[in-house]
Amino acid sequence: MSAPLLLTMGDPCGIGPEIVARAFVRGAADGCVAVGDPGVMRRAVQQVDASWPLAVLDGPAEIGQCPPRCLPLWVPDGLPAGLADLPLGRVDACAGAAAATCIEAAVRAVQRGDAAAIVTAPIHKEAFAASGVPYPGHTEMLAALAGGPPVRMMLANDELRVVLATIHVSLRRALDLLDHDTVVDTIRIAARAAAAWSAGAPRVAVAGLNPHAGEGGLFGDEEIHFIAPAVQAARAEGIDASGPHAPDTVFMRARQGSFDVVVSMVHDHGLIAVKYLGVEHGVNVTLGLPFVRTSPDHGTGFDIAGQGVADPRSLEAAIAMARRMAAAAGATAGRPAPS
Amino acid sequence: MSAPLLLTMGDPCGIGPEIVARAFVRGAADGCVAVGDPGVMRRAVQQVDASWPLAVLDGPAEIGQCPPRCLPLWVPDGLPAGLADLPLGRVDACAGAAAATCIEAAVRAVQRGDAAAIVTAPIHKEAFAASGVPYPGHTEMLAALAGGPPVRMMLANDELRVVLATIHVSLRRALDLLDHDTVVDTIRIAARAAAAWSAGAPRVAVAGLNPHAGEGGLFGDEEIHFIAPAVQAARAEGIDASGPHAPDTVFMRARQGSFDVVVSMVHDHGLIAVKYLGVEHGVNVTLGLPFVRTSPDHGTGFDIAGQGVADPRSLEAAIAMARRMAAAAGATAGRPAPS
Repeated sequence: MSAPLLLTMGDPCGIGPEIVARAFVRGAADGCVAVGDPGVMRRAVQQVDASWPLAVLDGPAEIGQCPPRCLPLWVPDGLPAGLADLPLGRVDACAGAAAATCIEAAVRAVQRGDAAAIVTAPIHKEAFAASGVPYPGHTEMLAALAGGPPVRMMLANDELRVVLATIHVSLRRALDLLDHDTVVDTIRIAARAAAAWSAGAPRVAVAGLNPHAGEGGLFGDEEIHFIAPAVQAARAEGIDASGPHAPDTVFMRARQGSFDVVVSMVHDHGLIAVKYLGVEHGVNVTLGLPFVRTSPDHGTGFDIAGQGVADPRSLEAAIAMARRMAAAAGATAGRPAPS
Repeated sequence: MSAPLLLTMGDPCGIGPEIVARAFVRGAADGCVAVGDPGVMRRAVQQVDASWPLAVLDGPAEIGQCPPRCLPLWVPDGLPAGLADLPLGRVDACAGAAAATCIEAAVRAVQRGDAAAIVTAPIHKEAFAASGVPYPGHTEMLAALAGGPPVRMMLANDELRVVLATIHVSLRRALDLLDHDTVVDTIRIAARAAAAWSAGAPRVAVAGLNPHAGEGGLFGDEEIHFIAPAVQAARAEGIDASGPHAPDTVFMRARQGSFDVVVSMVHDHGLIAVKYLGVEHGVNVTLGLPFVRTSPDHGTGFDIAGQGVADPRSLEAAIAMARRMAAAAGATAGRPAPS
């Protein structure tokens, strides 16, 4: 039996435990083990389908001992007491600490080889901060636990995959942050990830920054100064990169099949395209880590937590993506590196 | 009979004459009069359907005298000789001058009340410049002929309509150009235009500039400093404006029916969304002019001119949009202004 995927429950006061439970009941989480608090997960699964008991495991490797129609749960050490008594939909420091404990346990398990990948349900950034966790969110925490490699955010759905060179900064600051090395790193990371869904060498399209990709310098010169040279540098390493392409058509062309992944210079160029057809099936992937990590593309849904209406489809898409990327990573792990 | 729409032929060496001819032959240009050179238009219509003769009219008002299955053509004074002998697919000063002559004649006709709207086939900016025309493109020429009102570019298709606050400048320069008045003017112009397709008062969504519309100032402060105040100023004038909304979801929400039009701060936020589903039916509309002007959302296609393969659907969508906006303008012209 291959190593399981780990599903961290996220913030216990949000929709995370509920969508994790629903994914199991819907059969979308076969081969996964939930990582969370037994009280919180019992409350969640009873709300979804009271006929499903929890099967508490001593560790991820025991997934084979979970009977059918049971939710396999690994309870990490160090969880605060009384989590199931916290009111839903509210920021709480204990909830933030519990979410962080599950994430760290999952990372250590995957680093030990006891799990194949991590899928994280949403945490709440204010609860994280209130608990004293020294990271603003998942991405920063995972990168730190992995030793600080350069990471990039990918948003993906069935039609389009976009890797972002800059994310949560003002547009003005993004213009200052972008440079040759940032773009080359992003292209490399995107190409490595895209091997999971590309038939041959991944075709990486690099979007420009300015209208018409600068129109030969008339509408901005970042394309000339460092984006085009970064594409050339990546090509010199054997990556099938192209561009800089005009931002307003490159995503459409990728959707139509011309490219396997698009590198976007700024947050909204990429995310406008990924989200345009609806966000139900969007998946957020942290690339650059030494393990696979995906998450649904939405937050803790405090306004609907506990009402039984949270939509599990983005989490289910995140599970499917993690499974696929972990399989691809496993398939290439034993092969010699391409020359 | 209502006043006709005028279809300017565009650059005679591009695909403009061919798609104009094809729109007539396909029945998509009923009620329109072409404005162009007889030799160029004869060559174009013969390529499309040799059974269609030209019906040369003395002016747009004579459209009623055009027999069925004929292409009604108005030949403006002052066209250069020998246009039909120019090689296709090449920049030529005479071609640029001819395109400009047709545009000016069309504007004068619509200003006299002889035509209801103008639909322009593509011109080539280099040919325009080579001819000595003192405008970089259509938009600037039309605005100058109309006395220089503030104009804005709208891109529209069946699902989404986007009005741009800034267009053909670098992203860095767009950040410098954006201010309170630019945003308010854009909201006003968008609201006025959207009356043509809105059931009640148009719902104008204003997109932010920064990720998550600035996340309360954390990712940029333009939303706080002038975009939100501009939305408030527009609301004080009775416009149903909302925002600033997060750029990455506002276009998706507009497509799903939450808004009638979206104001985008920068070129590519809006155009990535409009073009994402394919460009065949995109329409470019110049808003703020005292008359209706639309155009297809593509260029002169020099690489395919004369091959008989140019796709007329964007031009046909531009004709349909012009017809709809002209009808709405006519319907409101006689009404008292809303109090």
